[in-house]
Amino acid sequence: MLIHVINPNTSAAMTAGIGRAAERVAAPGTRIVAVNPADGPISIESHFDEAVAAVGVCEEILRGEAAGADAYVIACFGDPGLAAARELTKAPVLGIAQAAFQVAAMLATRFSVVTTLQRTVVIAEHLLAAYGYAHQCQRVRAAEIPVLELEDGAACSGILLAEARRARDEDGAGAIVLGCGGMADYAGTMGEALGIPVIDGVTAAVKLAEALVGLGLHTSKHGDYALPPAKPFAGRFQHLTRSA
Amino acid sequence: MLIHVINPNTSAAMTAGIGRAAERVAAPGTRIVAVNPADGPISIESHFDEAVAAVGVCEEILRGEAAGADAYVIACFGDPGLAAARELTKAPVLGIAQAAFQVAAMLATRFSVVTTLQRTVVIAEHLLAAYGYAHQCQRVRAAEIPVLELEDGAACSGILLAEARRARDEDGAGAIVLGCGGMADYAGTMGEALGIPVIDGVTAAVKLAEALVGLGLHTSKHGDYALPPAKPFAGRFQHLTRSA
Amino acid sequence: MLIHVINPNTSAAMTAGIGRAAERVAAPGTRIVAVNPADGPISIESHFDEAVAAVGVCEEILRGEAAGADAYVIACFGDPGLAAARELTKAPVLGIAQAAFQVAAMLATRFSVVTTLQRTVVIAEHLLAAYGYAHQCQRVRAAEIPVLELEDGAACSGILLAEARRARDEDGAGAIVLGCGGMADYAGTMGEALGIPVIDGVTAAVKLAEALVGLGLHTSKHGDYALPPAKPFAGRFQHLTRSA
Amino acid sequence: MLIHVINPNTSAAMTAGIGRAAERVAAPGTRIVAVNPADGPISIESHFDEAVAAVGVCEEILRGEAAGADAYVIACFGDPGLAAARELTKAPVLGIAQAAFQVAAMLATRFSVVTTLQRTVVIAEHLLAAYGYAHQCQRVRAAEIPVLELEDGAACSGILLAEARRARDEDGAGAIVLGCGGMADYAGTMGEALGIPVIDGVTAAVKLAEALVGLGLHTSKHGDYALPPAKPFAGRFQHLTRSA
Amino acid sequence: MLIHVINPNTSAAMTAGIGRAAERVAAPGTRIVAVNPADGPISIESHFDEAVAAVGVCEEILRGEAAGADAYVIACFGDPGLAAARELTKAPVLGIAQAAFQVAAMLATRFSVVTTLQRTVVIAEHLLAAYGYAHQCQRVRAAEIPVLELEDGAACSGILLAEARRARDEDGAGAIVLGCGGMADYAGTMGEALGIPVIDGVTAAVKLAEALVGLGLHTSKHGDYALPPAKPFAGRFQHLTRSA
Amino acid sequence: MLIHVINPNTSAAMTAGIGRAAERVAAPGTRIVAVNPADGPISIESHFDEAVAAVGVCEEILRGEAAGADAYVIACFGDPGLAAARELTKAPVLGIAQAAFQVAAMLATRFSVVTTLQRTVVIAEHLLAAYGYAHQCQRVRAAEIPVLELEDGAACSGILLAEARRARDEDGAGAIVLGCGGMADYAGTMGEALGIPVIDGVTAAVKLAEALVGLGLHTSKHGDYALPPAKPFAGRFQHLTRSA
Repeated sequence: MLIHVINPNTSAAMTAGIGRAAERVAAPGTRIVAVNPADGPISIESHFDEAVAAVGVCEEILRGEAAGADAYVIACFGDPGLAAARELTKAPVLGIAQAAFQVAAMLATRFSVVTTLQRTVVIAEHLLAAYGYAHQCQRVRAAEIPVLELEDGAACSGILLAEARRARDEDGAGAIVLGCGGMADYAGTMGEALGIPVIDGVTAAVKLAEALVGLGLHTSKHGDYALPPAKPFAGRFQHLTRSA
Repeated sequence: MLIHVINPNTSAAMTAGIGRAAERVAAPGTRIVAVNPADGPISIESHFDEAVAAVGVCEEILRGEAAGADAYVIACFGDPGLAAARELTKAPVLGIAQAAFQVAAMLATRFSVVTTLQRTVVIAEHLLAAYGYAHQCQRVRAAEIPVLELEDGAACSGILLAEARRARDEDGAGAIVLGCGGMADYAGTMGEALGIPVIDGVTAAVKLAEALVGLGLHTSKHGDYALPPAKPFAGRFQHLTRSA
Repeated sequence: MLIHVINPNTSAAMTAGIGRAAERVAAPGTRIVAVNPADGPISIESHFDEAVAAVGVCEEILRGEAAGADAYVIACFGDPGLAAARELTKAPVLGIAQAAFQVAAMLATRFSVVTTLQRTVVIAEHLLAAYGYAHQCQRVRAAEIPVLELEDGAACSGILLAEARRARDEDGAGAIVLGCGGMADYAGTMGEALGIPVIDGVTAAVKLAEALVGLGLHTSKHGDYALPPAKPFAGRFQHLTRSA
Repeated sequence: MLIHVINPNTSAAMTAGIGRAAERVAAPGTRIVAVNPADGPISIESHFDEAVAAVGVCEEILRGEAAGADAYVIACFGDPGLAAARELTKAPVLGIAQAAFQVAAMLATRFSVVTTLQRTVVIAEHLLAAYGYAHQCQRVRAAEIPVLELEDGAACSGILLAEARRARDEDGAGAIVLGCGGMADYAGTMGEALGIPVIDGVTAAVKLAEALVGLGLHTSKHGDYALPPAKPFAGRFQHLTRSA
Repeated sequence: MLIHVINPNTSAAMTAGIGRAAERVAAPGTRIVAVNPADGPISIESHFDEAVAAVGVCEEILRGEAAGADAYVIACFGDPGLAAARELTKAPVLGIAQAAFQVAAMLATRFSVVTTLQRTVVIAEHLLAAYGYAHQCQRVRAAEIPVLELEDGAACSGILLAEARRARDEDGAGAIVLGCGGMADYAGTMGEALGIPVIDGVTAAVKLAEALVGLGLHTSKHGDYALPPAKPFAGRFQHLTRSA
Repeated sequence: MLIHVINPNTSAAMTAGIGRAAERVAAPGTRIVAVNPADGPISIESHFDEAVAAVGVCEEILRGEAAGADAYVIACFGDPGLAAARELTKAPVLGIAQAAFQVAAMLATRFSVVTTLQRTVVIAEHLLAAYGYAHQCQRVRAAEIPVLELEDGAACSGILLAEARRARDEDGAGAIVLGCGGMADYAGTMGEALGIPVIDGVTAAVKLAEALVGLGLHTSKHGDYALPPAKPFAGRFQHLTRSA
């Protein structure tokens, strides 16, 4: 089974880290290929960053189709381009936010999210509402760490752990969802320190992707996720033209 | 990995069928043990049947703990006893309704449920609301087939397929969720006939259980799913007494 | 009019207290019979306790049918077995949580619940959502008193009053709902001390039961609360077998 | 116990009918006084009718306070002036829509409303949402009978019954709520013909009012339903001036 | 274009202030006529005040129809009589609460309301829910200033600013909605002091009214806002009788 | 006042039509500049089309900032890139879906949407939920007309009118919202034929933009719509790099 894990930003270091996290949980027969678009923002911390990154995600799906991927993971917590990506392929496409919420909902009655910057909180809240998890999430908490600083483990682990502890003790959260694809490396030690499930979306999505492929199920091509209609694209996006 | 698949009713034939379905999708290293309580209703088609069956589910969890199960699946679409079961163990416990809704939500924007009797529709609708999937489910449809008649494949397959086709064509459902643990055998041929994902909760739950175990995550023991307080149980339930 | 007030746990002392509370508000023509199952947990403080107690509730309904009860009250705040109980009889069946929420909604725009242990908060929250009162409840507060310690009035009255005062002053609650069948004795003095309605579910349910019987209305036997289908029950639950 | 049943419109014939319905279910010690404002619309079939009638309701509350009423029923299905009325008195005030919804929710999982004109449907739908019953109501159906024609029993009973039968058979409603205070006389025969609970709000509200008074509870005077602030009223409403 | 700005209370000073605020933002071709009913409360701070004021609003609409008004603004934050007013005219009718919420929703993802007395908070909350803005409003805050004291700018501006600053800093509100028609004069300086949009409903409604008239759109006369049915009104409201 | 009306697709003919519609309703002092990206899909009929078009929308905002635009309208009914666009400017940014829903909510209690292809229905439904209008929209109806065929007035007007008539007569809609920026020319004649408000989002958004500018209000730069953080963009999007 070939899973393309798409880091929607253009930071190669973060892509490598996400790939390592994915491989750590992959089943024996699963091959992980971690990729990122050549074009787009170095990190995703705003609606604007998301909008641009979504195009890169779509292009990586098209590239993955050529490579024969069996499933895709979009490894940014805003799930940028998720609906568009699902239109472009019959293979299952997982967003790490949706995946993490689903896993949390099976392990605890209530969870909190610990994310990066305050300004991304609203993105997570919109997804919670759209996916149906708003009533199970106690609070989305910002650790006020910029995405690219997550690579500095020494500085970040204490801040994240403190915020997650507040989620457990003040929000009454039974589980913690990590709100950034770049936080995968922290889940294990945080879970041990807190004594509750700490869920990283990248690894969660990889295992759910394996599950869907294992069930022989595909993205519905009837209705809302059907292949996009054929039509010309102009200018810089001409290569995205779809012929009938 | 040892997964106990609990059929909450006392029909041994149905337990065997559920076990076979679970084994069909289990990963190489997964061992499936399909069990059912010795005590309780032969099928579950009412709130009353559910209430009695929930006790049997709890007892099977306790038995599974002794046997060292790594995860549990409750294979009845009302997810009877799910919250209680999650209290009793640190292992992940999956309900097939929650599992099927989650899988559907990753493959289509909208799904419909095809269940057995009209009187169980409200049970599915309550779960959709409680889990947060009400807005993604177009309709819960009853095929008006009693649970135990599901074993008669010749008679049932046409009825189920017709109802699911109506769901696709009239409801605009992009995926179908089968609303009974006894329908697992129908998913494959229905999916082929309809050209859209047809999701059986038993197999869905087995794969999600493997995913959770593969992630090293457990049911939260902080808060709402903590082990039940120690206390005496009287009479016929004396063996359930929990000492501190 | 004969009302069976069912204490779902097996504590005879608590049953007696609940019976006394019910009698205090019963109309002249109403006869209260307070009962509890012989089998089950001594108190209800977890989903597991609830699951087992629900069977006892059902059996008490069946016993009540033989005795000719005109209405039933399930006197535990999680309303365990309520839907199942309503299937088993044409007589009205009241849960004390639903009854208390309804009474509160007629007296104030917003109320708070004061319950026993933190781990039961989620049970009340699920009921608020299922019944449609989530938007009218400001907060469910736990006094951290185990159910059976409620009998110690000297120790508990101060704690409950302090928590209810916080509900009034911090939550802006116009009324307090007591979140346990064992709190009935505290409602009067708390209401006087706080100057706002303090609602005990047991007495509320008794008066609502009288109202429904007085209206000549019964539990609908069309659709979701119709009598359960006939079928065999196995083993220890064989006596619950329903013949057609 | 003295219950003032306020018909918010100025039709004396309708007031008399409502009074008779209320008396039919009143407990031995309950005295019913049916009243209507001297000023206002002859029937209530629009938001405008409601707005004017609400003033009459408030004035009847003030009159009732002088008469020592123990509880009030507002006998129009839009519950006009309900929040204002609750501010004006410590006695419980019941709206017949809220009362009927509560009774229905105790007897069936789903109900439908049968009301008068299509244009009043939205009023009922707003109340269902505001009170928290939207998810339990299958549909609000208009029989297209003007309010004052309800007195013509021969003409109306067939139309109402047909609409209620459609509610039972097409909506899957387990109970019917009658959507007008003038429909009280139809409830009994409709219930017998349909075999399901048919709930009239006037009688429902009378019995719930008795229940609240029997519990010794009053409208909360803390917060949102506190007595209105003292202040001058001008012109035609000068008599409503409240002094500190 | 003629816009009648209706101050629902009978305070002439407040009407004049509201009129001045409206004129400040009116387009060159817009004529503002600020009016108030001759009959009713001097200020609106309770459900009761609202109920009486709604009649005055309706009468001002009827007066406006005679004067040929092109649009109406109801300049009290509870939007009293809004639905009734919309029935009485084909011209657009704006409530200042709905107008302010709409403007806020176009400028920020989340806003808070700063209103007068705590007891009116529930009125704003009900409107937020009814209009669909509950999820975008972080909190409704009371400054505990009686409506008529708002005219004392020296005393009030500091209190309002402090409360709005808390909304920005503690609630994370990106915009502030002023919760009273009498607060129009404070919006400008508050917006400058806080650096975020501060929205006054009176001016917002005037500009939205201009927009609707400019679009050539009218209040729908099909269905729920159709003209009220013809019928007699009795007594003091006889002049409201509508003939067919 | 300078309003940039951005047609997110690359069809110059459609941009011209949208510009003409905008100019028809613009106030004397308003200057309309209709633009479209040079790069992207020729029409928007899928999530994928939307994702690519959103980048073009952002670039048009940046271009508009240089040109000194006072407000922006995104003239595609999915409001593609709306949140990102609001981050990029202090000027108000209107989406035509949000604008049309707001206008409809001021004119009728319930509306229906008539859009192009069935596959875009889900996009409108997601927006209705996200903006808070789901309870006011009766139904989103697809006329099954591809976007670019809307220019053929002879063929389309009958189809759109028939669908809108069904919305009025079967859904009980009091107003119709046109679900595509290319439908602006149809609103007038449809409104006359149906006798109810027919709302085109392009003209609605232009008038609401004028209103916001007239109020002196801007997009909040505090919190969720603050300017995006500075950061490098790679490859084809390098020009979007934001320096601190």
